[in-house]
Amino acid sequence: MDRVREAFERHGFEEMDTPALELWEVLAAKGGEEVERQIYKFQDKGERWLGLRFDLTVPLARVVASTPDLVKPFKRYNISKVWRYEEPQSGRFREFLQADIDIIGSQRMEADLECVSTAVDALRALGLKDFEVKINNRKLLTGMVESLGIKAGHSSMVLRVLDKLEKVGEGGVKKELIDIGLGADIVERILGFTHLKGEEALAYAQREFGSSKMTHEGIAELRRLQELSISFGLEELLRVDFSLVRGLEYYTGPVFEVKAGGSQVGSVAGGGRYDRLIEQFGGAPTAATGFSLGIERLYEVLFQKLKEETKQSNVDVFVANVNEDLASEAIKISRQLIEYGISAEPDLMGRKLGRQLEYANSKSIPYVLIVGKEEVRSGKYKLKDMEVGQDRFVQINQLADLLKHKVS
Amino acid sequence: MDRVREAFERHGFEEMDTPALELWEVLAAKGGEEVERQIYKFQDKGERWLGLRFDLTVPLARVVASTPDLVKPFKRYNISKVWRYEEPQSGRFREFLQADIDIIGSQRMEADLECVSTAVDALRALGLKDFEVKINNRKLLTGMVESLGIKAGHSSMVLRVLDKLEKVGEGGVKKELIDIGLGADIVERILGFTHLKGEEALAYAQREFGSSKMTHEGIAELRRLQELSISFGLEELLRVDFSLVRGLEYYTGPVFEVKAGGSQVGSVAGGGRYDRLIEQFGGAPTAATGFSLGIERLYEVLFQKLKEETKQSNVDVFVANVNEDLASEAIKISRQLIEYGISAEPDLMGRKLGRQLEYANSKSIPYVLIVGKEEVRSGKYKLKDMEVGQDRFVQINQLADLLKHKVS
Repeated sequence: MDRVREAFERHGFEEMDTPALELWEVLAAKGGEEVERQIYKFQDKGERWLGLRFDLTVPLARVVASTPDLVKPFKRYNISKVWRYEEPQSGRFREFLQADIDIIGSQRMEADLECVSTAVDALRALGLKDFEVKINNRKLLTGMVESLGIKAGHSSMVLRVLDKLEKVGEGGVKKELIDIGLGADIVERILGFTHLKGEEALAYAQREFGSSKMTHEGIAELRRLQELSISFGLEELLRVDFSLVRGLEYYTGPVFEVKAGGSQVGSVAGGGRYDRLIEQFGGAPTAATGFSLGIERLYEVLFQKLKEETKQSNVDVFVANVNEDLASEAIKISRQLIEYGISAEPDLMGRKLGRQLEYANSKSIPYVLIVGKEEVRSGKYKLKDMEVGQDRFVQINQLADLLKHKVS
Repeated sequence: MDRVREAFERHGFEEMDTPALELWEVLAAKGGEEVERQIYKFQDKGERWLGLRFDLTVPLARVVASTPDLVKPFKRYNISKVWRYEEPQSGRFREFLQADIDIIGSQRMEADLECVSTAVDALRALGLKDFEVKINNRKLLTGMVESLGIKAGHSSMVLRVLDKLEKVGEGGVKKELIDIGLGADIVERILGFTHLKGEEALAYAQREFGSSKMTHEGIAELRRLQELSISFGLEELLRVDFSLVRGLEYYTGPVFEVKAGGSQVGSVAGGGRYDRLIEQFGGAPTAATGFSLGIERLYEVLFQKLKEETKQSNVDVFVANVNEDLASEAIKISRQLIEYGISAEPDLMGRKLGRQLEYANSKSIPYVLIVGKEEVRSGKYKLKDMEVGQDRFVQINQLADLLKHKVS
């Protein structure tokens, strides 16, 4: 989380959190029917209907709508909890952490790519190398679907079904599309274009649906993203993929999804543009785009690596006492080390020396300083390097510098 | 929050969070009647009764109870949200952040003082100087109350009323104690000892109630805390105060509270020992003590200071373009700077140079790098120091080092 935070800050995003609880009307209808069913919803003691936020974007839009004097672009990040009542599975929990970045106030594709670029930097900072960024566009998808004769009111329903492609497979999607009343030939055509990727996809959309204004705009946005991706150093990562829809209702333009290669986990990050959400909360029409990293998904992908990294305690030195009479001396020395900025821990259990060393070893604390009677008298303390198994004697006034040097 | 986190880690606490939602039976009866009434309680779609956690200690105890193989002492910290449905007022909200530290597995007063010492370090790291740490002991209070003839089952009710002293005043407490059936003379004696502080308080308790085993133990713990406070460098800060009760039901021994001097906010931190809570969740009897900082309270106290510190953006350099043709060049340079670990931001709005400078100024970004045609040709860029108002020309290969040096 620290690395993600640092990456966000290097790109100039500022931290801002919003409440976990929102009035029900804030959350209702913002994510789409399926997400709405997943919201934890209840009445508080004042009998108001509340919900636990299902993402970090909707509450942000609510706050931005009521803060018209924000300097634009407003670049904010938030790493915090969200809730959805869905079936728990690997990397997917009912309470989960999103690491969210958003840029409010720019309608330009530069803002979208700044989000992608920041997210990619964060993933790289976590050690992820093997991944790709799928891109698509809601205008383009909607334009194509509506060109096939599906009415404006129904196209979002079609997109919602398409979003389940990975979950229920092509057969499942086909069945659902027929169930909502689409003809078999239209269903075939729709499923056909979800297979298209890259230049082939764009050329097809232009050829077959280029006369639709929405499709045309969507293509133009995707082309602009490709063009700009060179400046952002993203040209190798972005790939147009017509099967990408993204579940949330509020997207209006480009959508993105990052897949970790060679992993079962699926997408670890995603986002898109939502130019109409702030308006829905009574704000002025405000362009906005954002990206979100799924922390639990990343834990799944990085599990082995993280396990190794977090085995070590964040304590630099355990200050052991030889017997209880010297416990207070050990406490004092810990305090001195802490004042020097070294993380130190004295015994708090009244344990014998052997047990203290065992503890330090079990926590992989790299150094143990031994406080004995002779040490206190002479002012020279035994410092055990727990990794190398080497001892040396150091004076208390050298100790802090020595350790600071060693642990840094 | 970063400074608090750093202080916790210097003392060897490790971060661990628990879910915001708990089963109702986990939360019920753990904080006492008043807190129980304040819990956000509801049924999920699976019809289980859930509650939003009202503190970070109860969920920790629940986790510890089901993790018997934790290496002890287990020192954990958690900075996270909790919820209580109470009347919002200055520094007190229904959703608020606690910065919590706990030491599990040591029954020694060293563990209590390690928590106090860590909390004090965190408060100092925030720039707080003028504060005192009140200490008292639940055994002592219970022993004294029961010595006056109040039955074991009722003493916790009496303590609950005493805890309201600051809120409803002495008159209010007197009335409530009489309402629950105490005689006027007993009420007078109880109110009498809430006025006692320091050595006078301890001597009085010893003299009047020393024959009570509980009182005796409570006094011994307070004396031990005083004795140990010298090693911890806390002897000037700790003050015995018999009016201190702490609201939560689960405390069993020493209790603590930190008051910020010269502020209306009241306590900014508090804690105590809860040796029976883990057992209540089916764990082995496990000693435990903890401390919690109220982040919103601290915001109130530090508001002016924080306002000044946070005015400055975390962006080091704004990379401005002279005209739109050079926007992609500015994006590339930003990316290079970010790779060097410098926080940089290009324009994402297609603004004219004047508007870009205005933006950088409004965000108090310290440096602006100007990317013009001549600059790109010559490889020398104009760097504006926005504070001093000075310009200089730098080559792109010196830029990162120069800025890194300047901003660090």
